Amino acid sequence: MWANKLKDIQPFHVMEVLKRAKELEAEGGDLIHLEVGEPDFPTPEPILKAAKDALNQDLTRYTPALGIPQLREAIAQWYKRRYNVTVNPAHVVVTPGTSGGFILALGSLLNPGDKVALADPGYPCYPNMIHFLGGDPLAINVGPESRYQLHPEVLKKPMTQGVRGVLITSPSNPTGTLIRPDDFAANIELVESHGGVVISDEIYHWITYEEPPRTALEWSNKAVVINGFSKYFAMTGWRLGWMIVPPDLLPKVEALAQNLFISATTISQYAALAAFDCEDFFQQRVQGFDQNRRFLMGALRDMGFSIPVDPSGAFYIYADASPVLRRLGLNDSATLCRTWLEEIHVAITPGLDFGHNRPGVHMRFSYAGSLDRIQEAVRRMTRDLKQRAT
Amino acid sequence: MWANKLKDIQPFHVMEVLKRAKELEAEGGDLIHLEVGEPDFPTPEPILKAAKDALNQDLTRYTPALGIPQLREAIAQWYKRRYNVTVNPAHVVVTPGTSGGFILALGSLLNPGDKVALADPGYPCYPNMIHFLGGDPLAINVGPESRYQLHPEVLKKPMTQGVRGVLITSPSNPTGTLIRPDDFAANIELVESHGGVVISDEIYHWITYEEPPRTALEWSNKAVVINGFSKYFAMTGWRLGWMIVPPDLLPKVEALAQNLFISATTISQYAALAAFDCEDFFQQRVQGFDQNRRFLMGALRDMGFSIPVDPSGAFYIYADASPVLRRLGLNDSATLCRTWLEEIHVAITPGLDFGHNRPGVHMRFSYAGSLDRIQEAVRRMTRDLKQRAT
Repeated sequence: MWANKLKDIQPFHVMEVLKRAKELEAEGGDLIHLEVGEPDFPTPEPILKAAKDALNQDLTRYTPALGIPQLREAIAQWYKRRYNVTVNPAHVVVTPGTSGGFILALGSLLNPGDKVALADPGYPCYPNMIHFLGGDPLAINVGPESRYQLHPEVLKKPMTQGVRGVLITSPSNPTGTLIRPDDFAANIELVESHGGVVISDEIYHWITYEEPPRTALEWSNKAVVINGFSKYFAMTGWRLGWMIVPPDLLPKVEALAQNLFISATTISQYAALAAFDCEDFFQQRVQGFDQNRRFLMGALRDMGFSIPVDPSGAFYIYADASPVLRRLGLNDSATLCRTWLEEIHVAITPGLDFGHNRPGVHMRFSYAGSLDRIQEAVRRMTRDLKQRAT
Repeated sequence: MWANKLKDIQPFHVMEVLKRAKELEAEGGDLIHLEVGEPDFPTPEPILKAAKDALNQDLTRYTPALGIPQLREAIAQWYKRRYNVTVNPAHVVVTPGTSGGFILALGSLLNPGDKVALADPGYPCYPNMIHFLGGDPLAINVGPESRYQLHPEVLKKPMTQGVRGVLITSPSNPTGTLIRPDDFAANIELVESHGGVVISDEIYHWITYEEPPRTALEWSNKAVVINGFSKYFAMTGWRLGWMIVPPDLLPKVEALAQNLFISATTISQYAALAAFDCEDFFQQRVQGFDQNRRFLMGALRDMGFSIPVDPSGAFYIYADASPVLRRLGLNDSATLCRTWLEEIHVAITPGLDFGHNRPGVHMRFSYAGSLDRIQEAVRRMTRDLKQRAT
């Protein structure tokens, strides 16, 4: 009855975890959410005020498909200020979430069956989107040796076999690791020398703790960069992203955006203008995340989890649970996630969501929430592990 | 370099018209916009207030992928109240604009190369979206005899040849005509008896002047219905639509929505709750449109345009300009559109945007604006035609 490719579209396990967590909450349970990556601090006042100002002026009609000019300009300035990279505002495309950017980027690139290489473990939306748009995701196993990022050694062969696109996500979801700048530059050179296109997902940029993030634009004017307001700027429900696109793709992306989206939400676009005035606030939030990260990383290691590379970006720790599972006599991390959800009300995403590279021994912990809740989660997990050991 | 299907994605000519109109305005021209279909009245206060209340409560995080439950419930109630049709709120899917609904509906349905039948003249986004999602649009010429709508006689042969989907748009863009209820019922029976799916675009529902619109749900629980807040409710820039989906499609649509959109804009969802309290206001607006319609229909006929079927919905008149073009010695309507844009500053969309069924003699006039501006446009066009005749 329906399209064959729907069979390839996997629901996220995290959604099942979240649903069950909400059920337990409805029954009165005191749930701690380490499964979802949504920061829980309030939207800064200037952003809310800008949105209200837009409402007071009834700025609620369609905007141009590529976004309001002042927002495209503000995004271009952001690249100058934060990366010292010059971006032409004409190459900035405002999208309905980064999701919209991916539909435009992958949809512009892929002929039926075209392969797109991506890191495994990786974000589960990518293969689903690629399937949906008629392409074929090529998951490449990566590990601690490359900080869980793609690198020329693993990309060389696929590139000679006609891979069309290579997706780089740094910081990575789920591993929180940044690509080494040398690898980034070498990947771009390799991919482009084979006529492929690098799509750089930079949504977790500036949620970084040890080194600044690097944009693909430093090395390439052919890459497609995708970013948005949902992570660093924490404007999730506003559904606003952006792309930086190479000049030859611009008219095609404009025609596609007109047809597929008309435009991004108008109030969100005006509100986002104020986000750039709140960088001090967001920088403080990153310091808060860093506190959470240091605490949780240490605590998980104390519990016996293995974290071979310090995650230095995003708000995730992708821990290898093998030692813990062995001690408990469990076969896979999904069982432990389920047990902890039901018995100690700590919600964690099993590795299952992130590909086929040993998902059964991995768990993703989000530390986007508040430190005291994370500390309470650690107390519960530690206590539970002790009880089970005796 | 980029996907082959991009060649099939046509930019809208109306966008070129709009762009040129804005240039002329920037030069000080007093432009009258009959080219775009965006109502120009302010958003009702209760909707703006609901949006501000949502901001004050910082309701700006992701919502469930299918939308907030209270909005899904309100939409279901709307079907009971306005159509006397019972809809299960669980089958209501809130989407980012009706555009989002089309991506989900067509994306769920189409295998590569699958055909989707649609009326020609018709809305230009449809074939572009179908191409983008790997399908093959099958434009079927329709005319005054069926009110420019698909009917069993033209659908019979395509259905035996394996057409997967049939798109019905009533009221139609660009013709403003409603499908005859008998044809609607017969189309659905025919399509479903061949295992096809009817996608019913009901976005112009209740902007109707002579008879109430009929929903596909009256005859089918297998059809996919698409509607939204951008036309009757005039909430264009809020980017909010909805679908009613058959139960077996629901889990697939949910997984797709999670992957492709995450969710629709949160503030827009809360604001839309208030839209259902403003039905009196919107009904008055429809009366205003009707005044515009009667005036413009008469005036165009006086000028020599042929309008074989009274448009009784939406805010468009699709006029056959043949008699006028003949009198002026012009070859096609695009020339007349260009001339009127440049010389008398009246912007109109040429038939070009609406398919291959004699577009060169047609023009689409939108009467979504205010009556006095439409009257002024008519004065200018009438004067111009007189001058050219002498």
